[in-house]
Amino acid sequence: MIVTTLAIVGTGLIGGSFALALKQAGAVGEVLGVGRTPQSLARAQALGLIDRAVDWAEAGRADCILLALPVGETAAVLARLAPHLKPGAIVTDAGSTKANVVEAARTALGARAADFVPGHPIAGSEQSGPAAARADLYRGRKVVLTPQADTRADALATVRALWEAAGAQVETLDAALHDRVFAAVSHLPHLAAFALVDDLAQRADSEVFFRFAASGFRDFTRIAGSSPEMWRDIALANRDALATELDAYLGALQTLRQAVADGDAATLLEIFSRARAAREQWTMDS
Amino acid sequence: MIVTTLAIVGTGLIGGSFALALKQAGAVGEVLGVGRTPQSLARAQALGLIDRAVDWAEAGRADCILLALPVGETAAVLARLAPHLKPGAIVTDAGSTKANVVEAARTALGARAADFVPGHPIAGSEQSGPAAARADLYRGRKVVLTPQADTRADALATVRALWEAAGAQVETLDAALHDRVFAAVSHLPHLAAFALVDDLAQRADSEVFFRFAASGFRDFTRIAGSSPEMWRDIALANRDALATELDAYLGALQTLRQAVADGDAATLLEIFSRARAAREQWTMDS
Repeated sequence: MIVTTLAIVGTGLIGGSFALALKQAGAVGEVLGVGRTPQSLARAQALGLIDRAVDWAEAGRADCILLALPVGETAAVLARLAPHLKPGAIVTDAGSTKANVVEAARTALGARAADFVPGHPIAGSEQSGPAAARADLYRGRKVVLTPQADTRADALATVRALWEAAGAQVETLDAALHDRVFAAVSHLPHLAAFALVDDLAQRADSEVFFRFAASGFRDFTRIAGSSPEMWRDIALANRDALATELDAYLGALQTLRQAVADGDAATLLEIFSRARAAREQWTMDS
Repeated sequence: MIVTTLAIVGTGLIGGSFALALKQAGAVGEVLGVGRTPQSLARAQALGLIDRAVDWAEAGRADCILLALPVGETAAVLARLAPHLKPGAIVTDAGSTKANVVEAARTALGARAADFVPGHPIAGSEQSGPAAARADLYRGRKVVLTPQADTRADALATVRALWEAAGAQVETLDAALHDRVFAAVSHLPHLAAFALVDDLAQRADSEVFFRFAASGFRDFTRIAGSSPEMWRDIALANRDALATELDAYLGALQTLRQAVADGDAATLLEIFSRARAAREQWTMDS
């Protein structure tokens, strides 16, 4: 057993799957849940994700507390939790952005920010909510931790051990680099998919466009089926890095647009060939 | 039987699958093949896609000739075929763009352009070549025909019957509208996927970006694994419509970029919500 008591704030897909995996691995004793509504907590308990629902005071007495909520709520939740944290309690999160979470932890926790281990599991599903939770969600998936200079080494080791017990492969990254990387490989593609679908949907003759959209379109826009609220929050939480990445992408698209308009076959072939080679290399490596 | 003799120019995935499906359906008698090299034709014959390889003169004596080649080669192939076309022979194609193919047919075939039925099967695979051909490639897939005002009605009916025998659902569309629609729902997403992968691949620290790319990135960029040569040809063949669509898309991305930079939560939520709703509707309809 890695921790005796684990509290999950937000018992949906991410938090619920973490709890299930750790219970199955025998890595936790009791799992406590804090949620938005008594109904959602009752559902999480009925599904076996948590042993019982608790208030902030009791959550603060857990050995480890995982925040699994929209990143925009991190600051408010940490502020509610802070007065109740027992000595030695470890707090961690599962948010998609990290620099803003680190800042929220510094503000809300003060000196206790050393007990906070920022984390980001690279796993998910189009489905959400407690019913979507599964014990194997993190198996073989990457989890990025972005410890700060003052993060307690034993807190980091415990959070790492928990994710590994859930089957994940843990890597550490600088928080700012994390945000740059995920702006480019995750946040930007989501915005680009939303933008294409919305651009078509707003046309008077949108029906004919959607009628002939096929498998390439389906894959390219699959992530436009994601939660609008969650992606609004992520876009705002990572706005600086995301704006920088959008500028780079707009530049790349402008280059292609110019090559198309100029009938510049060589430039088109060069870009397409380099992209395909890079993607093939990535597919082999990953 | 719909036609006694079918000639396939280009016996790869698209042409080979058409031949296999029609043979299986008993819709054709003999299938002749014209190809770039004796080797590829021998392979197509060994795989049972064609009954025998022929020259242009014999291909021109078939009842129906399908061009299944890169769109950029259509004009040259039609010019070679034109002198050999027997009276009443029907010519059709499977190219991804149509306005340029229609123009090529008018130039190469003159008055015989009425025997040409422009077509575009909405089916494919990352794989290509004769070995990738399968009899069920077109089953349940859409095929768009873009007949002109002077297209022979019986030629259109025959080509429609052939595709239906192959299991496809045939629709007709104006050629210019076809090109606009496919610029938006197919060609642009390909360019957008190539652009993202290439933008990342060119960075000095590209390794860290690819290391954390996950399923959203994989789906968004899947089409960047497509043939660079084929997509160069399509981009050039449809350059006007594609440049127009790229401008619209750049505008949509600029709007999002501005909303991100401004922290404009309402605009982000509005766009993401509209996009998700439209995509859900599309998924239900298709």
